[in-house]
Amino acid sequence: MLNLPSKSLEQAVAQLSKLPGIGNKSALRLALHILKEDELYAKDLATSIAALRLNVKYCKKCHNISDEELCGICKNPVRDINTLCVVENMSDVLAIESTGAYKGIYHVLNGVISPLQGITPMDLTIEHLIDRIHSEDINEVIFALNASLDGDTTAFFIRQQLNDIPEIKVTNIARGIPVGGALEYADELTLGRSISERTDLTQ
Amino acid sequence: MLNLPSKSLEQAVAQLSKLPGIGNKSALRLALHILKEDELYAKDLATSIAALRLNVKYCKKCHNISDEELCGICKNPVRDINTLCVVENMSDVLAIESTGAYKGIYHVLNGVISPLQGITPMDLTIEHLIDRIHSEDINEVIFALNASLDGDTTAFFIRQQLNDIPEIKVTNIARGIPVGGALEYADELTLGRSISERTDLTQ
Repeated sequence: MLNLPSKSLEQAVAQLSKLPGIGNKSALRLALHILKEDELYAKDLATSIAALRLNVKYCKKCHNISDEELCGICKNPVRDINTLCVVENMSDVLAIESTGAYKGIYHVLNGVISPLQGITPMDLTIEHLIDRIHSEDINEVIFALNASLDGDTTAFFIRQQLNDIPEIKVTNIARGIPVGGALEYADELTLGRSISERTDLTQ
Repeated sequence: MLNLPSKSLEQAVAQLSKLPGIGNKSALRLALHILKEDELYAKDLATSIAALRLNVKYCKKCHNISDEELCGICKNPVRDINTLCVVENMSDVLAIESTGAYKGIYHVLNGVISPLQGITPMDLTIEHLIDRIHSEDINEVIFALNASLDGDTTAFFIRQQLNDIPEIKVTNIARGIPVGGALEYADELTLGRSISERTDLTQ
C-alpha cells in the first residue's frame, strides 16, 4: 500500500482500487485528477455513482437494465418475439444491438454456471428463462454465451431442460475465424471449429 | 456514445469516462461492476469521492496534500530543512519518498509553466517558492521536474529569480541510463545526457 499523506485520499484510493482493472497506482492517479478538477465534478461523479445503484431497475421480463418495469427492447412492438437470444450480461445485449443484425428479444442470465466460483443455476435467471420459453411463443432459442467451459456447461444445462419441447429450435452463435482475421494467426480451437462447423455455399 | 437502456447508467458512464485513461467502454465496465457489487460499495465509493474533494487540505508551507495545516514532512523535526526539492505534483513527492534516498523538504509547484496549455507562473506556487527560499534557511534547491521542454523552462524561470542569492546551490536530478537499463535500447537524448553529465570516479 502507498504511504499517503491524507486520510481522505487514502480512503478514496482504497475504494477506487476495488474497481476492476484499477490498481493502487491508477487509483491514486484518478484521485489526484478528481482533486485537480473543480468541485462540481467530484460532486457529480459521487452523485451519479450513488444514483446508479439506487435507481437502476431490471426488466421484469428479460433482466436487462432498464429505468422502467419493462426495457425498451421488450416493449418494442417491432421486435420479433418468437426469437429469444440468451446472453450472460447486459453488456452482451449492447454488443449484439450495436451490430443491428438481430431483431429478436433477449434473456440476460446474469452470469454462467461456474462450480469453481460457486455459481449454481439458482444464482442465475435460468428458472425464469425456462418459464418464459414454456409460456411465451418462442420458436428459436439462440445461445450467445462466451466460448468458455462455463458457457458451454450453461448452454448444455439449459438445453437439457428444453427436451420436452421438441418443436423448439435451439442454436448457438457461429464460432470461427473473425472477419478480416488471417488463418495462420488463428488458434487451433477456433480454426478447428471453423472447419467442423463450415457453411454450405451450395444451399 | 453507447446507446444505453437506462438514464442513471448513462449519467454514471458519462461521469466515469471523464476520468483520465477511461473511455466509454471502460466506464461502462466500471458502472456494471458497481451495479454487481453490493449496495454498500457504491455508497462508500460515492462518499469517499465527495469527501476527498471536500476534506483534503494542502500544506501551507510546501503545498503537498495534507489533512492538517502542515504536512507530515514539514512537521517532521528530523528532516533536513536546509535542502529544498522542487517537484511538479504531489505524486512526485510520493515517488521520491518511496526511494528513502531524500531527507530534505519539498515544494510542490502544482504543475509547470506551459504556454501551450495557458499555464503561467501565476497559476503555480512559484511566488511562494521564491519567498520561501528568501525567508527560510535554504542552502540547496534541487529541481526534480519532468525532463520536458516545459519542465526545463520552469526550472530556468525559477533559477533566474534566484540570481540575487549567489550563495545558494541549485542542482538538477541526474538524467541518464536507468539502473539495469541496456545502453543499446536507450534513446539518443538520454544517452547523450548520460555522457555529457558523466560522473567522475576518481574524485
